[in-house]
This record gives sequence, C-alpha cells and structure tokens, in this order.
Amino acid sequence: MIATLIPNCPLAMKAEVVRFIEQTGFRVQVAETGADTLVGVVGSPPLSLAEQLLALEGVADVQTAAPPYPMVSRAHHPQDSVVKIEGVNFGGPTVQVIAGPCSVESEDQILASARAAKAAGAALLRGGAFKPRTSPYSFQGLGRRGLELLAQARAETGLPVVTEVVAPEDVEMVSELADVLQIGARNMQNFRLLEAAGRQPKPVLLKRGMSATIDELLLAAEYVVSNGNPRLILCERGIRTYEKATRNTLDIGAVPLLKARTHLPVIVDPSHACGLRELVPALSLAAIAAGADGLIVEMHPEPERALSDGRQSLSPEGLADMMRALGPVAEAVGRRSPLGG
Amino acid sequence: MIATLIPNCPLAMKAEVVRFIEQTGFRVQVAETGADTLVGVVGSPPLSLAEQLLALEGVADVQTAAPPYPMVSRAHHPQDSVVKIEGVNFGGPTVQVIAGPCSVESEDQILASARAAKAAGAALLRGGAFKPRTSPYSFQGLGRRGLELLAQARAETGLPVVTEVVAPEDVEMVSELADVLQIGARNMQNFRLLEAAGRQPKPVLLKRGMSATIDELLLAAEYVVSNGNPRLILCERGIRTYEKATRNTLDIGAVPLLKARTHLPVIVDPSHACGLRELVPALSLAAIAAGADGLIVEMHPEPERALSDGRQSLSPEGLADMMRALGPVAEAVGRRSPLGG
Amino acid sequence: MIATLIPNCPLAMKAEVVRFIEQTGFRVQVAETGADTLVGVVGSPPLSLAEQLLALEGVADVQTAAPPYPMVSRAHHPQDSVVKIEGVNFGGPTVQVIAGPCSVESEDQILASARAAKAAGAALLRGGAFKPRTSPYSFQGLGRRGLELLAQARAETGLPVVTEVVAPEDVEMVSELADVLQIGARNMQNFRLLEAAGRQPKPVLLKRGMSATIDELLLAAEYVVSNGNPRLILCERGIRTYEKATRNTLDIGAVPLLKARTHLPVIVDPSHACGLRELVPALSLAAIAAGADGLIVEMHPEPERALSDGRQSLSPEGLADMMRALGPVAEAVGRRSPLGG
Amino acid sequence: MIATLIPNCPLAMKAEVVRFIEQTGFRVQVAETGADTLVGVVGSPPLSLAEQLLALEGVADVQTAAPPYPMVSRAHHPQDSVVKIEGVNFGGPTVQVIAGPCSVESEDQILASARAAKAAGAALLRGGAFKPRTSPYSFQGLGRRGLELLAQARAETGLPVVTEVVAPEDVEMVSELADVLQIGARNMQNFRLLEAAGRQPKPVLLKRGMSATIDELLLAAEYVVSNGNPRLILCERGIRTYEKATRNTLDIGAVPLLKARTHLPVIVDPSHACGLRELVPALSLAAIAAGADGLIVEMHPEPERALSDGRQSLSPEGLADMMRALGPVAEAVGRRSPLGG
Repeated sequence: MIATLIPNCPLAMKAEVVRFIEQTGFRVQVAETGADTLVGVVGSPPLSLAEQLLALEGVADVQTAAPPYPMVSRAHHPQDSVVKIEGVNFGGPTVQVIAGPCSVESEDQILASARAAKAAGAALLRGGAFKPRTSPYSFQGLGRRGLELLAQARAETGLPVVTEVVAPEDVEMVSELADVLQIGARNMQNFRLLEAAGRQPKPVLLKRGMSATIDELLLAAEYVVSNGNPRLILCERGIRTYEKATRNTLDIGAVPLLKARTHLPVIVDPSHACGLRELVPALSLAAIAAGADGLIVEMHPEPERALSDGRQSLSPEGLADMMRALGPVAEAVGRRSPLGG
Repeated sequence: MIATLIPNCPLAMKAEVVRFIEQTGFRVQVAETGADTLVGVVGSPPLSLAEQLLALEGVADVQTAAPPYPMVSRAHHPQDSVVKIEGVNFGGPTVQVIAGPCSVESEDQILASARAAKAAGAALLRGGAFKPRTSPYSFQGLGRRGLELLAQARAETGLPVVTEVVAPEDVEMVSELADVLQIGARNMQNFRLLEAAGRQPKPVLLKRGMSATIDELLLAAEYVVSNGNPRLILCERGIRTYEKATRNTLDIGAVPLLKARTHLPVIVDPSHACGLRELVPALSLAAIAAGADGLIVEMHPEPERALSDGRQSLSPEGLADMMRALGPVAEAVGRRSPLGG
Repeated sequence: MIATLIPNCPLAMKAEVVRFIEQTGFRVQVAETGADTLVGVVGSPPLSLAEQLLALEGVADVQTAAPPYPMVSRAHHPQDSVVKIEGVNFGGPTVQVIAGPCSVESEDQILASARAAKAAGAALLRGGAFKPRTSPYSFQGLGRRGLELLAQARAETGLPVVTEVVAPEDVEMVSELADVLQIGARNMQNFRLLEAAGRQPKPVLLKRGMSATIDELLLAAEYVVSNGNPRLILCERGIRTYEKATRNTLDIGAVPLLKARTHLPVIVDPSHACGLRELVPALSLAAIAAGADGLIVEMHPEPERALSDGRQSLSPEGLADMMRALGPVAEAVGRRSPLGG
Repeated sequence: MIATLIPNCPLAMKAEVVRFIEQTGFRVQVAETGADTLVGVVGSPPLSLAEQLLALEGVADVQTAAPPYPMVSRAHHPQDSVVKIEGVNFGGPTVQVIAGPCSVESEDQILASARAAKAAGAALLRGGAFKPRTSPYSFQGLGRRGLELLAQARAETGLPVVTEVVAPEDVEMVSELADVLQIGARNMQNFRLLEAAGRQPKPVLLKRGMSATIDELLLAAEYVVSNGNPRLILCERGIRTYEKATRNTLDIGAVPLLKARTHLPVIVDPSHACGLRELVPALSLAAIAAGADGLIVEMHPEPERALSDGRQSLSPEGLADMMRALGPVAEAVGRRSPLGG
C-alpha cells in the first residue's frame, strides 16, 4: 500500500502520516523526489487502512496492490469461467441469446413468447414476474403467478428461464421456480440481495447499475461470489449520460474491459441500452464483435400491446432476423453462432 | 392524454394509432397542422395507455395532464408540509441541522459525537449502524449493536437519531430503535424497502439516487407516502457527473425545483456532495441560501480515525464554526437560525 | 409548428399565447383534451417563432415539423452520400480506415507512419500539424512544417492525408496542402471555423464534441453543408461520462442513429473513445458491426516515444493485425473489407 | 515527477521504464513496497516526459509536483487578484452583478435594458453582438452594429459593457468597442481565441465549457494569462449532466474549489445554469453564499419577446427584486452588497 502525498506537503503533515501508520504496527518506507513524497506501508495492511489514510490531511491518493475483488478478478483465475445452465454454456465458444418479454403478462402471452424465442433459436427465456417500476402506479408484475407461468413455458418449450428478484425475502421462492436469478440495474448495490443471491444454488445474472463504474460492478459481483455462488454472469445494459436520443448509452468499451479484468461471462442487453427496437440489431452485432458472450433481448409477441417497454421490444420476426444476422459476426470473431451449425 | 406523432407521419401509422385507442374504449380527437399531428384521448384513460401508445410506431411522445406523483405534488397540497420529529420541525421557519459520524464505531465515539453535535447546536444525531458498502471487505457497520448505541446517545443528550435502513426485513427493528429512518442513495429505487418504510410510523429521510432525476425522486417519495406514511423529508446529496474534482456534483438547482414541485421538506447533504471537508461550509451556506429546509452533515470526533468517510467529515470545531455561520444566511433569506435567537 | 401548453394552463396564459401568435400574422388552431392544450401555428412560421413561444409562460414545449437540419437530413436525401477522396470512397460498400500518429513529430516519424499505414492497408494517413492542447505548455504541433511533411509522406506513399484545422485563418493554408480537413471535438461548435470549412473545396471530417448531442452534431454539419460544401464525413469519437476506466465512452448507438438521420458517411475513432490501445481492436470491430463506414485510428511507429496520445496508439503490427480482423466482420454485415479481396 | 507502475509490474517493464528515463538524461530513484513500484525522476524534467511515460506499458499514473497552471494558481499568488473594470472591482469585498439581454436586438431594446440594469443596481451591462448558435438558421446577432449599440448604451448609462467574441479575427474590433471580452462556454478550448484574448489589453471573462473539468478551465485560463493578460475573470455557468429538468446543472462546488485553486475572481451565471427564470434568484443567492465574487444574469425588457433565451431571462422588475435580495446574503458571508450601503 502506497500513499501519495500532496505536492510540497508540509513536513508536519508528512510526520503525522508516518506516525499514524506506525501506530497501526506497520513499518513505513518514504520516497521523496523533488516536491513529491510517497509513503509505502510495508507488509499486508488491511484495506481499511487505505480509507483511514485518505482521511489524513496531506494524503492525495492511496494505492493498493491487490485488485479489490480477488474472487472475480482474472488475475487470480486466468481462464474464462463457463457458467452452465441446464446444458447451455455462457462463456464458452457459442454466443448465447436470452429472449422474451419485459414482463410476464398472461399465460397466452408468455407461451407465445417462449415459442417464438425457441423458434428463433434463443437459448433461454426471459420474463419479469416482480417488476421494479419507477412509479407506484405502473404495472408491477404478476408476482408468484408470473413465476408459475414461466415454469409452464419452460415445461412446454424446454427453455430455461431467467427472471428478476427484487428483495432478499423473495430469493428462496424465485430460486425454486427459475433457472437463473436476475439482479437488475436498480439493485446492483442492494447488498443484502446480493448476499442472498450468493447463498442460493442457482446461477445469477447481474446487471450493471445505470451509473455504476466497472469497478463497482466487479465489487458487486464479488459480493455474490464471496457468499458462495461462483455461477455469475455480468451484463452491460447501458449507462445514464447526457445524451437522450437513446434511453441509455451502451458502454461498448465495458465489454473488452470486463473481459480483461474478470474471468466471468459478460453479456449485453441492447434493448435497455437504446430503448428503440430499430437500433437493437445493430447494437447486438456490435456487442458480439466486441467480445460479448451473449445477449439478453426483449421480444414480445405483440410489442405494441406490451404493458411495459414495448418501444424497445422486437417482434418475433425481428428476433428471428437478428438471430440469423448474429451467426456470421460471431464466426468472424472466432465464436460459434447461437444457431449452431 | 395527448400523443404527438412523428413529423410527416404516414397515414397508415396515424390510422393504427387511432384504431388502437378506440379499441380501448376511449374517444379520439385529432389535430393536424402542416406536417404535425396530435392525437388526443378524450376522458380519463389509465396511465398504462401512455406506455402502450409509446410502443406504437409513429408516436413520438405522450403527455398526461396529471402530475404522476399526486400525493407528494404541490399541485395537490399547496402549503408546505412540516415534519415534526420529537419537537423538531422540518419544513418550518427554522433551518435544522442533522450531524454525526458516517458510522457508529464504538460507545465512546458515538457518545463523543452526540455531545459535540448537541454542543454545536445540531437538532438531530446521525450515525450508520447498517452500512451499504461498495466492497464486501469494507467495514459494514455494527448492526443492532449500533442501533443500541445510538439509543444510548439519545438518552444521554436528548437528540433524536437518524439512521439508515437497508433491507425490508430490518425496517421493524430500526423503526423501534430510531427516530427517523434514512433510505440511502443506493436504495432510492429499492421499491420493497420504500413500501416497508411507508407502512411503519416513524418519519423517513429519503436521499436522491446518485443518477436519479428529480421526477424519479418524487416518484420514489410517492411510494412511501402512498403506502401510508406522509412524514417524509427529501435530501439532495449530489449527483454523479463527469467532474471528479469533487466526489459528486451538488445539484443546487434541485432545491428550488423540488420546493416548487412538492410540499415536502427538502434538505441537503453537503458532505457526500463534495467529499472534501474544506468545501462543506460553503456548500452548506449555499444550500440554505437556495431555500433548503436543513442539512445533514458528517462530523466525527476524530475525522482522521474514522472507519469511513473521514475525508469529508467535519471536526467538532468545524461543525461549531459552520453552525455559527449558518444563522446570518438563514436570516438573510427569511428563515430562522438553527441556533435560535 | 405546435406548442404544447402546461397541464391545466390558466385561461389567461392560453389567451396570451394565441394573441402572441396572431400578432406575428399566422393563424392559430387550438386543440383541447381534458387538461391538455395544444396550439398549432398554421402555415410556415420562421424557426425563430419557436424560440419566442418557448419564452412565454404556459408553454411547455414547441415542436416543428421539419428536421432542423434539412441539408444533412436523410428525410430530404434518402440515398447514402458517398464522399470521394482521391479515389477512396467513404459511404460506399467498402469499410475505409484512416491511420497515423496523433501528431506529426518529424520527417522520419511521419514517413515511417505513412509506410506502416500503407503496408497495413489503410486508405488515408492522419497526422496533426496544429494540435489543440489542453495545456499551453504541451507540445502544440509543428504547424506549417507539419503540413509539408504530410505532403511529403503523401508524395512517397500515395496516401491522401487528413489533418486538423483549428482556426478560420488557417483554413486556406490547410486546404491547399491537405486532402481532408479535420474539425476536432473541441471545435465542433466553433461556428466560424465550420463556415470557413464550408466555403473551401476539400472534404471535411467533423468529429462529435465530447458532450454534444446527436442533434447538435447534425446542426454543426448543417453549418458546413449550408455554406456550400457537401463533402462531409461525421465521426463518433466517444463522449464524456462519469466512467473513467476509459478516456471517453464510445457511444456505439450513435452509429445506427446517425445513419438513420443523415445521408452522410459516419466513421468511428476508437482510439480517443477508449484511450487504451488494447481496447482499440474490439471497439473497431464493434463499430463496423454497428454499421460504421470506416475508422480513424491512431498508430505510431514507436508508441512509447510519441509526444502525445502514446497510450492509445497502436503499433504498426497492432494496426496490421486489426486490419486483418476487420475484413470478416465487414463481410458478415454485408460490407467489403478494407483490404479488398 | 513520479510514475506509479501497475501492481505486480513485470520486471522487464520496470527495466524499460528506468532505461527510458535514463536515456532522457535524468536520474532515476525506484521505491518498491510489496507489489507496488514507484519510479521517481530526479531533477526538473519537462512536462512532456510525463506524457511519454504514460505511453509506456506498465505505467499506471504519473504525478508532477508543480500545478500545471503556474500563473493562475493560488500556490504562486496567494492573495486574491482584483480585476478593475472602469472603476468596478471584481474579486474585492463587493459582490458585482452584470446584467442584460442574451442578444443585442435593437437600439430600443438595448437602451431599455441598460437603463433597467442601471436602475436595478447592476455594475456592468451584458449583451451579445456575435452569437454562437447551435443552428445555422437561428438569429446570429447584429455583429458590428450590435457593438456600436452597446457603446451607445454605455455612453448613455455609464455602464461598462461585456460582450462575447467568437473568433480570433474579431478580437481587435471587439477589444476596441467593449470593456470586457467574454469567451463563451463553446469556445473555452478554442485555444487560438484564448491566445488572441491574451494579447489584447481589455479584461476577459472566461466561461467554463459545458463538460470541462475544473482543471481544464484553469488550463484555459493559463492560456490567456501566459499570453500576457492577467485581467481574467472565471465564470461557472452550469455543466451538462443526465438531469434535464434544468438546462444545465450548476456546479456550485466549483465556486469554493476554484477560489481555493486560483487567485482569479470567480462569478456565476445562474441563467444558463438552470434555463428557467423562476430558479434564477435562488441560484444567485446560493452562488454568493458559496463565495462567488459576482453574477452575470440575463435580463430582457420584455422576456417573452426575446429573440433568444427568453425563458431564462428576468424581467426588469425580477432583476430589481433579486438585487435587493442579494445584499443581506452578501453581508451574511462578509461581503458587501452590490447596491452599496
């Protein structure tokens, strides 16, 4: 651990920093060059010391050698992790696509969605039963009934299902009925929920918060893995910026950056990223070209009838067209098409 | 409800929009002017129709007449609401200050903090027992033991206490032991938590999310109030922007804007907004000048020993100096000093 | 032109809006539905009326039918425009790559760069002679001498050259010596410079400002074209966001959005977008997959010796590797490889 | 100068960094602590070396001791600078207000504005003759005729005038006719313009770019001062963020931060910051409470008739009310009222 002091740091401040560290029982090594001073802490001090040093006057910055997310860091696990979900591999050679509606609305709607997703070649079905909605007066999802309809759709089509969980007290129920637990952007730093998801056996799909940094996403991931669940998939879904022509701004650079920093699979949600169905195919192709391991895409049998997010939902035909376009791009970057072959 | 169609909208799209609305049972009124078309829905359609219309091709925008947060809107409650906490009024003539450490760390620390807060003239004591921390390896707070120490500090000094609650399952316990439940920035859209806070009797302090819009904050407030709890205080605490010279960017314009849109009291957290103790006094004065009803400020008996947020914590003397500076500014804008007189 | 009034707009405000429009000589048409009011201006009022209406109390929004950038809008020119530069077509089937160093530093350096660019299959050479630098004490470029060295590199390799122009008074000189005039992100709204670039005969490469919206970019483009120069290429180069893991955030969604709104060619600068050479290849592939017409990439014969932007510059080998990777992706999305074949 | 290497930096990279520095003729001092390595450059290397080091693999960060803007830094000039404009002092005890319309529109309008500004107690008159407009089809200002009208308004009222200059070739003309040259947000990094403004004798008002960092603003200021003109006033005018309820987000924290880092006067433009006249008074009071040396405010004799920015312009009465409110706040923070007394 190394503290950088402010330029031309007064001697009294320097002495106080050294004294403070020595009181914690660690040895100090000081390097001075012109107006610059660095203070190294010899040994393996706890991370909490970094926070304490930052509180001292005269300390400009503190750097620690270890990545702060050891379990998810690629430094500690150089090979790609593969997360297997009922025979579908995320993080392996094949690009995988999860498709389905924003919300489970009815038996007819979710069954039609599941059939369309399967027909188009998607590997998993998505659908929300518990919906986190900005307004208390918006449709909040069908709850447990929605989970049961998802299970019925799985029984009919064989597609494993992904659905969101929004509170620790629901984790057990969702874990029983779904194949993958999604933690949404608004809950990326709901640490109690992350811990609960880490203590149950199903894989977790963790979406980046709408203004989370890459490192905050990896630290949130560390909450899940350090609680015992290594089967985690990360999802870039657009970040909030000044630009309002799209719903969010897809941070495409996050894909290669995450792949460099972590061994976990990384997928992209182009639907929430742009909010406009006509842009979804271009962003999907871009995501695969940038190295993503898959996609999660909104598709609704009748987008214009959707109770939420209709504007960004593909039609079944739109999904099928996009799936056909993905294969050549996947192969161009050395991956396998989601349609096999 | 009025839908604005895209410029030069093709006739077929127009017809589909009209047909769709009529199928829902509402009457349609169309206004065309040059290349522009507006489609009005006569009557009182449900808000969900707006979402469905937005999903139709050709619809550029949908506007609804009613503010989407009726209970917290000033339109429906023109007078300022006053939230009374053990004899301390938020939203009345007096500017109120909440002060204390980021975290409850020990009996000595919280008692020293409470005494310093009281001596400086603060009206309430803050202190975190359950801490939402970015890293699973950071200090996570003392939990229930922290709540008990806060209660002890209250017993000694008479200051009511504000503390954060991070999960629905903790609401009952925190509600029993604390005087105000804080919902932090990371949980502003933890809707289950908002609902639980709405169903218990203690006042709630709701902080703006770090990338939440003003309207999202008001909709989150509506979750609390519509679940039965009208005793709500809003808090602007800085938003996340490109500028990194400060920890966040204090959105000072949010203060008069919130006061115009809602009848609820609005306070400011200058400590998290800037992250640097030397800027806290200037931001505190600015907040009061802009019309804020009070402040929540971090103060630690020994900032450089704090387990978290030391860099932004005032010392007891720093707090006392700032409190003395607040009075003249409060009076200059027609309010009363937190120190009385 | 249609003005949307605020919900429940008082009658007096409505009357004032109508009176104001009628004074300008245009006829008014009012549509009311419940609490909503829309006021249409019949005929073809000047755009300045929209600004005046927005200044009236009670007016929430004003929409105009025509896209505000008629000359660059795809609505008025549905076919893709192709910009031809010494036999190289931007906006046609072939994906084009511009490569070269941030700055022209010396004869040896720019000749080595030009040879490496040509060997790798780039179509144009880039290199800055006039550098807009954040600090007055940073290397500011070689100026006219840099332009002459670029001309020498073109003479030797046959590659047309792109270079930045930073002031109206330099336009004539740069136009004489270079093949394409680049207007950089910091100057996207230097309107005098845009006008000057519009009045000279060489094609223009216009980069998006670091916090410019899509529409602001298109309006800046309209400045160039409306001054007489239709040979314009737009460039997405990353926007400034809260995320600091990369230098900027590549707004990949801007590519299909720009292609939908304008007929002009659109290229991407992955180097400035991420600032890290190891991410440049992934972003380049993503850009082509998203529909970009080409790339502008920084390459330096010895990146670690570069006087500026070395961290984001590819080596000659890195460029050659990337060029080979582009072809399959270009073909996967129906374009031609920059390497031909 | 000190380079921080990446954690666990391979030995070969370390050796290359050392070798590189030694080649430049400077001596190296290395400090290693656990996985951390720091490499100090002994002596006074040129700033360009920092850029070169950043381009080397393995270098995570480079810190330099001197502030990069020596002339505007408070470190080199601890006392506040006072900029005197025809007897009006910016940066002294009195809070100064500049008021006037966005654009000079006509003789009647600017004379009425000047009279209203003077009557309300403003110290200077603002008004744009050369307007940088997002669209080529918007009103672009009256140009030289506008400057002459401003001079006429000054002759009648005695108020010195501030007006914007948008291109180097206009600097001489504007410098002759105006008392203060404004460089607007869009031109904050128009370095040629900064240099030209630095080489003429009139004071300069430099506005922060809409996504400029504090340090970029100070470096832009350094361009002006290092070219010979020390009479510079800085202006915070709101930054571009995701929040669209206001036109921009006033970065109120920039005021005390700038005052700490530089000796130059700092003023605030609340009109552009929020874009809504009803918020202007609250933001003005907040700016003064935060330590600003003054304000620049838009006021129009008939805001609803303004050719630009009418929505954010105060009426003459609105300005007079605000001026009366400023005095008590100025005095509450130890300054003098703009109205004297």
